[in-house]
Amino acid sequence: MPMFKESEDRRAEWEIPSGVFVVSLLDGDRTNGYAAGWVVRVSEVPVMIQVAVWDENYSYELAQACTHFSVHILEEGQQDVARHFGRTCGRDCDKFEGYAVIPGVSGVPVLEDCLAHLECEVASRQVFGDHIVLVGKAIEKGIHREGKALIYNYQDYQ
Amino acid sequence: MPMFKESEDRRAEWEIPSGVFVVSLLDGDRTNGYAAGWVVRVSEVPVMIQVAVWDENYSYELAQACTHFSVHILEEGQQDVARHFGRTCGRDCDKFEGYAVIPGVSGVPVLEDCLAHLECEVASRQVFGDHIVLVGKAIEKGIHREGKALIYNYQDYQ
Repeated sequence: MPMFKESEDRRAEWEIPSGVFVVSLLDGDRTNGYAAGWVVRVSEVPVMIQVAVWDENYSYELAQACTHFSVHILEEGQQDVARHFGRTCGRDCDKFEGYAVIPGVSGVPVLEDCLAHLECEVASRQVFGDHIVLVGKAIEKGIHREGKALIYNYQDYQ
Repeated sequence: MPMFKESEDRRAEWEIPSGVFVVSLLDGDRTNGYAAGWVVRVSEVPVMIQVAVWDENYSYELAQACTHFSVHILEEGQQDVARHFGRTCGRDCDKFEGYAVIPGVSGVPVLEDCLAHLECEVASRQVFGDHIVLVGKAIEKGIHREGKALIYNYQDYQ
């Protein structure tokens, strides 16, 4: 009998805090962007960053073979950007339309309107359960402006 | 010439927000705990969690062969717990001394004084740069109390 319980409304894994990110992927001439929470650092030297893509998303297709990705750290107040990239599908539209985007050194779309970004070359790709996990080595990165990172809050996306 | 710059004091990767965690490891009859920020979910079904251990830490030794780990999500105000597990070394002392600990189903130490915990069986182990990354499948988890997760803030640990 476990000492600590959970409920339908409160799972231990939901308590793990995270930021809110837009991740863009580059696979040949195909690109897409999606809203993410599961982004983490995995190495300090060299700088390596990990993202994960859910197998129900269009981005999962691109993640099978993409060579580069870019992580964009959203700032407090940018919930609308996360909602846009989370609720539209790259199969039906160009999600970057209407957003200022510049090509990274690899050609991956870099979103200007964020706190900071890290452009990465894919170094490892592995499936865990219902997600594919990409680890990338940072090849270019930058601070876009002053500000505080947005922390994920479930209520913001209901 | 990159469009977005960094400085010595402000690196893009430092802007990635995270929680603050104590991670305990079980390797045979050896256990240790360390303070962590690089903890992330990697699968929803089944629930899988990832931790990373820096190669300069004693825990790196245990992480080579450990079979289980437990992630403890710290609550706002628990900076002192993170400082304790971050500043002492398991080679020199039992870091859990003075803390209420119960054995998890695997025997890994489960810290009572936290928001929630996830006990995991190691499913994958991979070195990236200066860290070893462990992915584990949750075998037991629970909510310990009500509260808000602590967000990592560099100034708290100076």
